[in-house]
Amino acid sequence: MGRVTVRRRVLRIRDGASSHRPDTLAAEEPMEIRVGGRPLTVTMRTPGDDFDLAAGFLVSEGVAHAETDVAGIRYCLGATDDGSNTYNVVDVVLGPGVEAPDASLERNFYTTSSCGLCGKASLDAVRTVAAWSVADDELRMSPEMLATLPEKLRAAQKVFDSTGGLHAAGLFSSDGELLCLREDVGRHNAVDKVVGHALRSGMLPLRGCVLMVSGRASFELVQKAVMAGIPMLAAVSAPSSLAADLAAESGLTLVGFLRGDSMNVYTGAERLEPQPVA
Amino acid sequence: MGRVTVRRRVLRIRDGASSHRPDTLAAEEPMEIRVGGRPLTVTMRTPGDDFDLAAGFLVSEGVAHAETDVAGIRYCLGATDDGSNTYNVVDVVLGPGVEAPDASLERNFYTTSSCGLCGKASLDAVRTVAAWSVADDELRMSPEMLATLPEKLRAAQKVFDSTGGLHAAGLFSSDGELLCLREDVGRHNAVDKVVGHALRSGMLPLRGCVLMVSGRASFELVQKAVMAGIPMLAAVSAPSSLAADLAAESGLTLVGFLRGDSMNVYTGAERLEPQPVA
Repeated sequence: MGRVTVRRRVLRIRDGASSHRPDTLAAEEPMEIRVGGRPLTVTMRTPGDDFDLAAGFLVSEGVAHAETDVAGIRYCLGATDDGSNTYNVVDVVLGPGVEAPDASLERNFYTTSSCGLCGKASLDAVRTVAAWSVADDELRMSPEMLATLPEKLRAAQKVFDSTGGLHAAGLFSSDGELLCLREDVGRHNAVDKVVGHALRSGMLPLRGCVLMVSGRASFELVQKAVMAGIPMLAAVSAPSSLAADLAAESGLTLVGFLRGDSMNVYTGAERLEPQPVA
Repeated sequence: MGRVTVRRRVLRIRDGASSHRPDTLAAEEPMEIRVGGRPLTVTMRTPGDDFDLAAGFLVSEGVAHAETDVAGIRYCLGATDDGSNTYNVVDVVLGPGVEAPDASLERNFYTTSSCGLCGKASLDAVRTVAAWSVADDELRMSPEMLATLPEKLRAAQKVFDSTGGLHAAGLFSSDGELLCLREDVGRHNAVDKVVGHALRSGMLPLRGCVLMVSGRASFELVQKAVMAGIPMLAAVSAPSSLAADLAAESGLTLVGFLRGDSMNVYTGAERLEPQPVA
């Protein structure tokens, strides 16, 4: 079974002196996701919560929406030269009537016709595939409550403390309770693991929830939130332009630079109340 | 033509007060890379240096090694509904005798046979595809010199200052001179842009150079450095386990947590001299 961290001897240079000492690194290993035995994608991930990762990836791709859409997940047999199982190949059996993804499709939903690929086409693709809308979600959260999430996320991050090398994604209820935390070397994987856990627990769509991420908010993360039915995404760092565009188009509340009691609200500010006066 | 930043009105909450104000976001747009007219991949990137990005991607994939391997790069015609060109589709014409990549191949070089996918297979794949070795590179740099790179990188980062949302990759000579800086919402894109610039300038392999990145060092970034013939990769944050494994196997010097005058040297410490005494 894969390990979440790996120990390694390093040369540490500090204050003009050097010393050899052990260091703890975040583990990174490839994982192949198959559907019905057919290879779909390979992602570099931190081992652990692999079934959540596979399930969440399928939610992000628009393949799975309900707990019953995934009939089973298992590690494929497969071994390295020395005979040990790699636990790096996962096969998903879809539920009855669930259409398998087109394995020739790229990970994202882009139109690749000869007419111009653009941000607008990316936004349209998400709207077409999403199984539900987050625009009408009645979540309300005060800025004071939202400001407590980064510290809760950080406090629950066990591996980051030892490696400094993992992204975290945390799912919070509307009263600020941490429902699920996942960590990974890839920020998209951390989110997929959270969403996959929610799918497998029958929690989708995640109405009334807030997804908090430790880094930046890219288009891809907003897409994953929308696909999971999450109405609010909060990030410690900056969003990209297309992330804000997709959030605006989808009716998702996007908060960036959430640090201490300060934050920037890019879209959907009506969900943050009561707001301090100007 | 795509813009590097986008202005957007945000609600800013700070010190218990809220105000609407303009904010500058890092632009993110999809870009499709074609080779000989055939779609190869789509990446979410910050517009700008798109030809460098396409060329560098092909270096990372083991397709291009020399300036003459790329005969030409152009934007494909393609327009949005309103008739404007998207500048988001790039076509690469390969030089004579250069084998086109298999478009069915995943972005990374994984073996996807039914025997176990593992980190070792990933390492082997890079070794098989690399056109040169960095193990015998005679680069030497003092820790004091290396410690000056983050500040030089930061000083040259124009867009980050305004958005806080971009990764940077900088190529430095052995005497600490910044040769090329590129920024992008995706850290792998920033590195591909640097490497593509080097390819198109006839600089490959990048012997005696140091690649400095603003974030973490993943397997993928070490892979890109090795494929470009760069013997040293330095990162502001943590490396992953597989990044250190690949660096060790390739003979690349991997430095992490490079902040102020302190750093962790994970592999290839012999290139850092003179070293402070323990």
